[in-house]
Amino acid sequence: MASKAIAIVAGVGPGTGAAVARKFAAAYPVVLLARNPANYESLVEEINKSGGKAMGISTDVSSPESLKAAFDKVKEEHKDATIAAAIFNASGRFVRKPLLDMAVEDFVAGYDVGVKGAFLFSQSTLPGLLKHGEDKEAKYPPTLIFTGATASIKANALMSGFATAKFALRALSTSIAKEFAPKGVHVAHAVIDGVIDIERTKEWLKDMPAEAKIGPEDIADAYWHLSTQSRRCFTNEIDIRPMLEKW
Amino acid sequence: MASKAIAIVAGVGPGTGAAVARKFAAAYPVVLLARNPANYESLVEEINKSGGKAMGISTDVSSPESLKAAFDKVKEEHKDATIAAAIFNASGRFVRKPLLDMAVEDFVAGYDVGVKGAFLFSQSTLPGLLKHGEDKEAKYPPTLIFTGATASIKANALMSGFATAKFALRALSTSIAKEFAPKGVHVAHAVIDGVIDIERTKEWLKDMPAEAKIGPEDIADAYWHLSTQSRRCFTNEIDIRPMLEKW
Amino acid sequence: MASKAIAIVAGVGPGTGAAVARKFAAAYPVVLLARNPANYESLVEEINKSGGKAMGISTDVSSPESLKAAFDKVKEEHKDATIAAAIFNASGRFVRKPLLDMAVEDFVAGYDVGVKGAFLFSQSTLPGLLKHGEDKEAKYPPTLIFTGATASIKANALMSGFATAKFALRALSTSIAKEFAPKGVHVAHAVIDGVIDIERTKEWLKDMPAEAKIGPEDIADAYWHLSTQSRRCFTNEIDIRPMLEKW
Amino acid sequence: MASKAIAIVAGVGPGTGAAVARKFAAAYPVVLLARNPANYESLVEEINKSGGKAMGISTDVSSPESLKAAFDKVKEEHKDATIAAAIFNASGRFVRKPLLDMAVEDFVAGYDVGVKGAFLFSQSTLPGLLKHGEDKEAKYPPTLIFTGATASIKANALMSGFATAKFALRALSTSIAKEFAPKGVHVAHAVIDGVIDIERTKEWLKDMPAEAKIGPEDIADAYWHLSTQSRRCFTNEIDIRPMLEKW
Repeated sequence: MASKAIAIVAGVGPGTGAAVARKFAAAYPVVLLARNPANYESLVEEINKSGGKAMGISTDVSSPESLKAAFDKVKEEHKDATIAAAIFNASGRFVRKPLLDMAVEDFVAGYDVGVKGAFLFSQSTLPGLLKHGEDKEAKYPPTLIFTGATASIKANALMSGFATAKFALRALSTSIAKEFAPKGVHVAHAVIDGVIDIERTKEWLKDMPAEAKIGPEDIADAYWHLSTQSRRCFTNEIDIRPMLEKW
Repeated sequence: MASKAIAIVAGVGPGTGAAVARKFAAAYPVVLLARNPANYESLVEEINKSGGKAMGISTDVSSPESLKAAFDKVKEEHKDATIAAAIFNASGRFVRKPLLDMAVEDFVAGYDVGVKGAFLFSQSTLPGLLKHGEDKEAKYPPTLIFTGATASIKANALMSGFATAKFALRALSTSIAKEFAPKGVHVAHAVIDGVIDIERTKEWLKDMPAEAKIGPEDIADAYWHLSTQSRRCFTNEIDIRPMLEKW
Repeated sequence: MASKAIAIVAGVGPGTGAAVARKFAAAYPVVLLARNPANYESLVEEINKSGGKAMGISTDVSSPESLKAAFDKVKEEHKDATIAAAIFNASGRFVRKPLLDMAVEDFVAGYDVGVKGAFLFSQSTLPGLLKHGEDKEAKYPPTLIFTGATASIKANALMSGFATAKFALRALSTSIAKEFAPKGVHVAHAVIDGVIDIERTKEWLKDMPAEAKIGPEDIADAYWHLSTQSRRCFTNEIDIRPMLEKW
Repeated sequence: MASKAIAIVAGVGPGTGAAVARKFAAAYPVVLLARNPANYESLVEEINKSGGKAMGISTDVSSPESLKAAFDKVKEEHKDATIAAAIFNASGRFVRKPLLDMAVEDFVAGYDVGVKGAFLFSQSTLPGLLKHGEDKEAKYPPTLIFTGATASIKANALMSGFATAKFALRALSTSIAKEFAPKGVHVAHAVIDGVIDIERTKEWLKDMPAEAKIGPEDIADAYWHLSTQSRRCFTNEIDIRPMLEKW
């Protein structure tokens, strides 16, 4: 493995982001991005204490300036590092509302973080990913992963803001995959179709067995597997559901 | 037919928008929206001279204020009118560019007009469409149509801005369809998969027969047919290609 | 309109097939195919009495020999006729059953009629459709339409036989469209997503308004519109739902 | 891991099937099904010599009788064994031909092996898979995998036989997934979108780098990963392409 490869996770919260960060921290120094430092502070400490290497940076991925400042810090800390894996897991708040009751600010909120943010994050990480692809000692091809949702492929009533953002993110992932696969970067999109088992969803599906929810650490396993696929086998999309999901 | 029903077309240019406006003007007074008055002025004159009734309003559909001002003018001119048909045909400029060369302003331009604009246009027209659905004398159910493109279902390399906007527009159309069909509004999305035969594309596919391009007046026929479908037969999506299209 | 153009409908029953036959009989002599003569006899009489021209032929579309015999009769009756429209509306019986309880005969039944039958019907009608495309006096391009269902795009549990047949039929329609559009034949597939309002479904959704079901005559209108599209505007797929359908 | 769990691969040839068999043989005794014994004989020997356990059975998966005889042999050899993984990799011959030149036998050939065969294989393996799902000592949930192709989602001209079969197989996979996931069986479908690097394709894409083709052993890695996913993270579909694939 390249001695100076790192992994970057945007959108580190208590669920998928944290699990993905832990998983990739077993192989690479990790950089954790979140707007609210509370979302990564204890995780950074946990990883650093348990033999890994992590840094957290507070940033707003929808702001070019804020993201630039964040990546300046990354470069300072990890001079000359290549990027082995970049995972975009940010979604932005979204409201479930009748169309006629929805404020335009609410409608665009999902796009600003989840699509414009994904675009900016991709621009920020692709140079490092390309560099990793050229590193002969790199164990795996560089991988850029986007986290989608049921709404990536199904636009339900009252979900106009979230569904437009998630459909758009899926388009972004495919467009980047087609442009950068020939240059050696593996780009993948994951349709997470179900409730993820985190603190915030503790009360949901309460009377159902554990198999009614998706395990964040299981998503992390799937992402890790994607990041280990060879250049002769790129998976560009996976879906993920718990055993008991109706679909 | 209800005596006071109108049709509204957003994104009137020299191609689809104009043809749609002409077609619907045969049945309803029409309101034509475009940013640049040059795009509708001669058409408004043409329709008014040939026995129809048309008004043009210059507006930026991506601006809530501008659009509100436009619809205030519509209400002034067409007091108590219901909306029989609303067609959203605006796309916003888009650039075909490698991802790393694309300015964030270029990336979001397609979304601002084509998605946020579509959202605002829908909010502006749905009250009038719902009212039309309650009009017992209305001949056809009210219809809201969105114009999509190949990029609505296919995200190619270098097309990240356009494809994200078009995927998102398709999601918006479906979400609105599911919310408003039970309330009587027919919502449809058209995937226009091919080159439309207009002045700007005159030099494209020059050596091919006329059947290599899509006729704008043929798109208008298809939209008109959608607007005449009964409440027991709503088509929510059609695709359109010329005979000689490869797909 | 070409003086010797006919329309052929396979799968004439009490619903869509009959409505389509009536609609096209207003423009062309029609040939009605069904396994059971009871399915077309009164309709043939009705059309012939009301100024149209119809003939019915009993045939099993899944049998090459039976279908050949049927088309020999068509040629006898309509010497030198071109085919303006061919509509494939046959489905074959299907059973809703747990996979482990399904007999192989039940599983393949949908395919035999609905896919192999569609293939044989296409082979039987395409020469006449191509000839119609070359007729300079023909008003509209020749059109070949396949009737699909919700199961064409959604494979639910217990529906393995029907869903495999309907997915396959959609593939057949697209493959033929791509091969024959450049030769002038318009091929379209309709996803009928809802309950059609016929005698057999009288008791279904009984407490709901009429808009909870699809009108067969409305499907016929949509098919007729498809058959009138120009060579510069082929729609290859439409979906159809009643106003109150949940999807 | 359950002491008596086996893996079964149908459609063992020189490419994907053999690679999958080798991969799963590292964890389970494997049963290899192929019509032609030449397709598995040396592989069975290779696995048995290198510490694994393999048996080959000649069978025609499209024949209920032949498949029943094969599974009788499996039960004889592996009494009381559960099935940890069943992989359906058979396709049947297919011809690329203009629709009007295609014999009905050629058209249905892909369906007979690839869809009816997949249905019969599923019926034969699901009881053993369900049993594995109830085994408290089983390391992973039981997994049933179907091998698809580009034609599973794209129906091109001249490919009517292959595309109808592959669309149908995808429907079968989803229908079974929805029925059996709640009972603990993980069902997945893989869209193999590209040329697999095997003896038969040696001359294809000859001037391109190795990354223009898919590695069979890489497909096997992806299948193995699917078979290790937890009940809180079932992936029902993956796509697979080589780095240099255009799509």
